[in-house]
Amino acid sequence: MKAGIIGSGSWATALAKILTDNGEQIMWWIRNDDTIRYMQQRHHNKHYLTSVYFDTNLLQLSSNLEEVVAASDLLVLAVPSAFLEEVMLLLPPGALNGKKVVNAIKGLVPGNNLLINEYLSEMFDLPLERYFTITGPCHAEEVANEKLSYLTFSGLQEEPAQEIANMFGNSYLQTIVNRDVIGVQLAAVLKNIYALGAGIAHGLEYGDNFLSVYITNCFREMQHFLETYGQEHIEAGSEHNYNASAYLGDLLVTCYSLHSRNRTFGNMIGKGYSVMAAQLELSMIAEGYYASKCLFEMNREVGAYIPVAQAVYTILWEQLNPREAFLALEKGFI
Amino acid sequence: MKAGIIGSGSWATALAKILTDNGEQIMWWIRNDDTIRYMQQRHHNKHYLTSVYFDTNLLQLSSNLEEVVAASDLLVLAVPSAFLEEVMLLLPPGALNGKKVVNAIKGLVPGNNLLINEYLSEMFDLPLERYFTITGPCHAEEVANEKLSYLTFSGLQEEPAQEIANMFGNSYLQTIVNRDVIGVQLAAVLKNIYALGAGIAHGLEYGDNFLSVYITNCFREMQHFLETYGQEHIEAGSEHNYNASAYLGDLLVTCYSLHSRNRTFGNMIGKGYSVMAAQLELSMIAEGYYASKCLFEMNREVGAYIPVAQAVYTILWEQLNPREAFLALEKGFI
Repeated sequence: MKAGIIGSGSWATALAKILTDNGEQIMWWIRNDDTIRYMQQRHHNKHYLTSVYFDTNLLQLSSNLEEVVAASDLLVLAVPSAFLEEVMLLLPPGALNGKKVVNAIKGLVPGNNLLINEYLSEMFDLPLERYFTITGPCHAEEVANEKLSYLTFSGLQEEPAQEIANMFGNSYLQTIVNRDVIGVQLAAVLKNIYALGAGIAHGLEYGDNFLSVYITNCFREMQHFLETYGQEHIEAGSEHNYNASAYLGDLLVTCYSLHSRNRTFGNMIGKGYSVMAAQLELSMIAEGYYASKCLFEMNREVGAYIPVAQAVYTILWEQLNPREAFLALEKGFI
Repeated sequence: MKAGIIGSGSWATALAKILTDNGEQIMWWIRNDDTIRYMQQRHHNKHYLTSVYFDTNLLQLSSNLEEVVAASDLLVLAVPSAFLEEVMLLLPPGALNGKKVVNAIKGLVPGNNLLINEYLSEMFDLPLERYFTITGPCHAEEVANEKLSYLTFSGLQEEPAQEIANMFGNSYLQTIVNRDVIGVQLAAVLKNIYALGAGIAHGLEYGDNFLSVYITNCFREMQHFLETYGQEHIEAGSEHNYNASAYLGDLLVTCYSLHSRNRTFGNMIGKGYSVMAAQLELSMIAEGYYASKCLFEMNREVGAYIPVAQAVYTILWEQLNPREAFLALEKGFI
């Protein structure tokens, strides 16, 4: 199986490192020809994980997406979710015929609240059997430093998911396989919302005691959402052990990381900045900002009781006072 | 109900603050007459949480334990577990007749691996109906600063546990009541062991990605131990929602705290210090050190599969190389 990586940010670069460390020849779509030339000359990504040196014999770099897709058996999607549509529109509808797609994006398609598999099914007729996900607590920077990390490979069927996992597993990358291909995506969306909320709590000057209670209750809420969603939507009988790295682990690393954009953004909101002021100050919007709206809308149908995610949404999108929102949340925590 | 606090460390002082902030008159046993005189003159504890000022009209301080116990309806035990036996031996066997006891100690009785309720039952015939626990993620320093914290009050029966909880609840202290009076104690013992292990992992230079996976798997192991233990030992049908602050929350705050003794001690072990060298360097032994041995011995009967707790025990007490122990653990994490 020849893998093609779509994207050149830090997560894409980390995944390319893992595959090439394992001796895999990869196709790699990088939008910018200058970035490609730089990598060919200097053997590393100019902008991200600059310490990671590549054996360029293993890289086939191209800025032509159709070419990369045509030459790959397995496509690894690793662009920010906000750019996914723009990138995929470069492809004709039949481009994914017969391909396997591994989604390494943690997020929903902005604007239409679709899971990535739903979007790919609509646009490219990709069946769920050929769709896989990579999730788990994994700062790209630690992969660059070869600090042991765990990634979960999910697919409707275990065998092909295991095959893909085997391409990635190595001395610093432990792989886990499960069949909860929908649930892991939702967990990844939720954890961004909860991490943004953790930032808000920090901005409101709650302490470590409260943060641990907050995260505990977020984890309970996450499970409740997945269970409620699953009853309606998930056809395949998938096992659920939520006390695993793709669920609890990823929530922890994101909420406790001081470097997370969600947390930094939330912190400013908690301190009283408006969304626009925080955006201008940080020159970015955190993923949890969009995710909170998507999830709020999605939950109109799902109908789960998710007071934390709802509070984050209402603070960000309906200008609810963060202090008031958290005063209401406090009462319900156990 | 008149409460009597036994102990004058930071946790005892925090509990005294909460009760007196709520207008409760309390008896307070402090071993050292100088410390008592200082508190009467200066209105604060000379050694711990020195910023907390007390209304001395609400305090009856005494270094005579029997007197304090006789005058109290409700005894709050808040001495380090290592000193509990020494303190309780000051009392005659009938001293606890008719009293309620609230255990705020997180630990087992050293040497005999008894839960505090088992010890009090053996020594003072205290029935489990009059035994309660206070657990939860609660650094005393944050109570001193009136940062919102959550404490769980457990008792065989909900009503008396709720009554006690009501004495403590206030604007910065949210109370939770459950009936899992045995399970919460075991969870508190386990989290010290796991936090020590987190320190070892840090000393071995694992990163944040791994730490989140480690804690996730510790949480799963904790639940497995409680379930296995419960099947054998717990008569009362108690509800178990482990996704609550007394279980997961306390594990998180302890493992992620940079100020935890367990973590600091573990860090030195991970870096290659012997137990004795770490002890000399830090002038203390972490609770998790003793707890790991108690639990190891307790588990001979329980027979739960607890590889992490067992690894921590073997590293500390049987000189297993930490690197090797963690290499073995890594494989089993999900």
